[in-house]
Amino acid sequence: LQSKLPHVGTTIFSTMTQLALQHNAINLAQGFPDFGCPEELLELVTQAMHQGHNQYAPSTGLLALRQKISEKTQLMYGHLPHQDHEVTVTSGATEALFAAIAAVVQPGDEVLVVEPCYDSYVPAIELCGGVPVYASLTYPDFSIDWQQIEDKLTPKTRLLLLNSPHNPTGAVWQQQDLDALQRLAEKHSFLILSDEVYEHMVFDGKPHLSILSVPALAERAFVISSFGKTYHTTGWKVGYCIAPPALTAEFRKVHQYLTFSTATPFQHGLAGFLDNQKHYQQLPAFYQQKRDLFAQLLQPSKFELIPCAGTYFQLARYTAISDLPDVEFAQWLTKEAGVATIPISVFYHDQTDHRVVRFCFAKKEETLRAAAERLCRL
Amino acid sequence: LQSKLPHVGTTIFSTMTQLALQHNAINLAQGFPDFGCPEELLELVTQAMHQGHNQYAPSTGLLALRQKISEKTQLMYGHLPHQDHEVTVTSGATEALFAAIAAVVQPGDEVLVVEPCYDSYVPAIELCGGVPVYASLTYPDFSIDWQQIEDKLTPKTRLLLLNSPHNPTGAVWQQQDLDALQRLAEKHSFLILSDEVYEHMVFDGKPHLSILSVPALAERAFVISSFGKTYHTTGWKVGYCIAPPALTAEFRKVHQYLTFSTATPFQHGLAGFLDNQKHYQQLPAFYQQKRDLFAQLLQPSKFELIPCAGTYFQLARYTAISDLPDVEFAQWLTKEAGVATIPISVFYHDQTDHRVVRFCFAKKEETLRAAAERLCRL
Ligand SMILES: CSCCC(=O)C(=O)O
Ligand SMILES: CSCCC(=O)C(=O)O
Repeated sequence: LQSKLPHVGTTIFSTMTQLALQHNAINLAQGFPDFGCPEELLELVTQAMHQGHNQYAPSTGLLALRQKISEKTQLMYGHLPHQDHEVTVTSGATEALFAAIAAVVQPGDEVLVVEPCYDSYVPAIELCGGVPVYASLTYPDFSIDWQQIEDKLTPKTRLLLLNSPHNPTGAVWQQQDLDALQRLAEKHSFLILSDEVYEHMVFDGKPHLSILSVPALAERAFVISSFGKTYHTTGWKVGYCIAPPALTAEFRKVHQYLTFSTATPFQHGLAGFLDNQKHYQQLPAFYQQKRDLFAQLLQPSKFELIPCAGTYFQLARYTAISDLPDVEFAQWLTKEAGVATIPISVFYHDQTDHRVVRFCFAKKEETLRAAAERLCRL
Repeated sequence: LQSKLPHVGTTIFSTMTQLALQHNAINLAQGFPDFGCPEELLELVTQAMHQGHNQYAPSTGLLALRQKISEKTQLMYGHLPHQDHEVTVTSGATEALFAAIAAVVQPGDEVLVVEPCYDSYVPAIELCGGVPVYASLTYPDFSIDWQQIEDKLTPKTRLLLLNSPHNPTGAVWQQQDLDALQRLAEKHSFLILSDEVYEHMVFDGKPHLSILSVPALAERAFVISSFGKTYHTTGWKVGYCIAPPALTAEFRKVHQYLTFSTATPFQHGLAGFLDNQKHYQQLPAFYQQKRDLFAQLLQPSKFELIPCAGTYFQLARYTAISDLPDVEFAQWLTKEAGVATIPISVFYHDQTDHRVVRFCFAKKEETLRAAAERLCRL
């Protein structure tokens, strides 16, 4: 049996969570909250199940939920480009990413990815016969080098895969990024796949700059988001894709044969809960407080924190503690210090190692305190 | 934008459900029950949510659920071949089918499909660059013509895609089918993808003959099943794949980047409920009673029923009622008679039209009676 993904092993998220469990370590590796989701949301889902909403949802998603998503999106990112834009509900953002890639990447097409990047992007491209072309964020501030991007564009570039707020680095787009992207879009015909699952985690009073807020970009983009991140329900696996009609049509063709539809009771619950603007409006403050607490707790440690402008991830340089490569350091940290993290080199195709690990701070205060205590001992 | 699936429109299941809603027709088209799932199962899921099981499940599936599936499978299909077989939980059987195809089909590989067949098979093969090779079930008894299968095997045949109990025809494998398949397997090196989601709906006292019950076949097969069909919860989208370690390893590589994991609360609920053998042991009798009731109710009609040995689908010839091609007849039946069905020609790449439609009888007695009343008026 010849592997279709010879370079791929088990994803780092499973590996580190497994290792954390094995060593009884505090898990700041895989990104998920260790606190509950809104009680009202649980009640709505429970109600939906007991009312008998347990059969197939429409493949495109429950109409009520799609309408709520549209309304919310228009409220956040402005009306105009979205009048025709369509929402498709998916089984998590991961499915949405895969479906978008499978919908438009033909064998031999180039897809530009900017490293470090989420580890599902490249295997999805490869499974579709696409050719990943790698650009990288600048180091150490992890901004996009638009000249480098432009240099890597070719007539074969089908898709530009972007992500902000950025996982794993915590960097976010500035207005100049959207401007630069728009200039490139005027000259080239690539499509955009924009992973914006951390849209509600932008800090320091800044807004999230969505591709959807720029009509000239939105008209050629799949924009992906995730209820898991926003509603503290990563295990429900409900995400969505917003795209113009022509892209949506192709996206849905693939989606209907990938998973067909997404869990009905959660869709009902979320449709009922989405009117609650307060929940997501207070998310930036909620997570900023956690970011700041964690940074303050790590102040006495030897970790050097890299500024985090968004997401619920904090990068930290550990060179004052250890000479190990980051993968080995992360293993050592889990086993010896009892704190699990994610090494960053796994998000580069050539394992670029900045000697940096990623901490997830979507955790209860007591968890962050316990972890910081262990980390400060090093 | 050049479509990756130029021949594909909206799946017939969405189309007919939409049309049924539009015309307020009784929906015997898309396969889902119109009755509830076990109350105890709902309670277990509700409990899991309130206990905080709302974050990512392991990508392979909850350990407790995988163990219960193993135990149940061994109980049903015998011990030996499965000692090493591994279970992976997926977001519905549709995802499992896609993942298995994506895991082993390389561009140019041939995949043998037997028509009529479920409409996700061929688009999945095509998205992976595979070449579908078509065999067809005999007509009108819809059995497998093994000589035809053998004639279509080539050194490029990577995968043989099989399905029993068979959707849409209601046919089931006989022992001679497994014997014939085993003889082919001795001479050729294809892998098997076996869609057995209706495993608990085999009637007239016969057992389901699973690929898993034949060691020589199980060792080269992905076997797919679905909790949606068995527990009346098609909208939860929880399925699974059982395969030997080498196939499982490749399957999981793909699955982790397709959806990563499947809804955690449902996995907890199902793990708790799976000990209840009574539920699935009485399913054949439960659905056989519905099959027989529906047949009896249609006795006075002009439909000619094709014997149904398994699944919750009943085929019927309508030539005594109409000269229309089946797609048009199904539309007419929805609009004019108020009963939605599935035309069968859509499951053939060349639209072979036997003038037959498919009724789903996974419905309450009152639904079947109301539908039959309308159908008998024609
Ligand atoms: C799908 S598991 C990974 C969760 C996540 O988004 C992350 O940790 O980066
Ligand atoms: C995924 S919708 C189709 C349901 C089904 O299995 C069928 O009706 O054949």
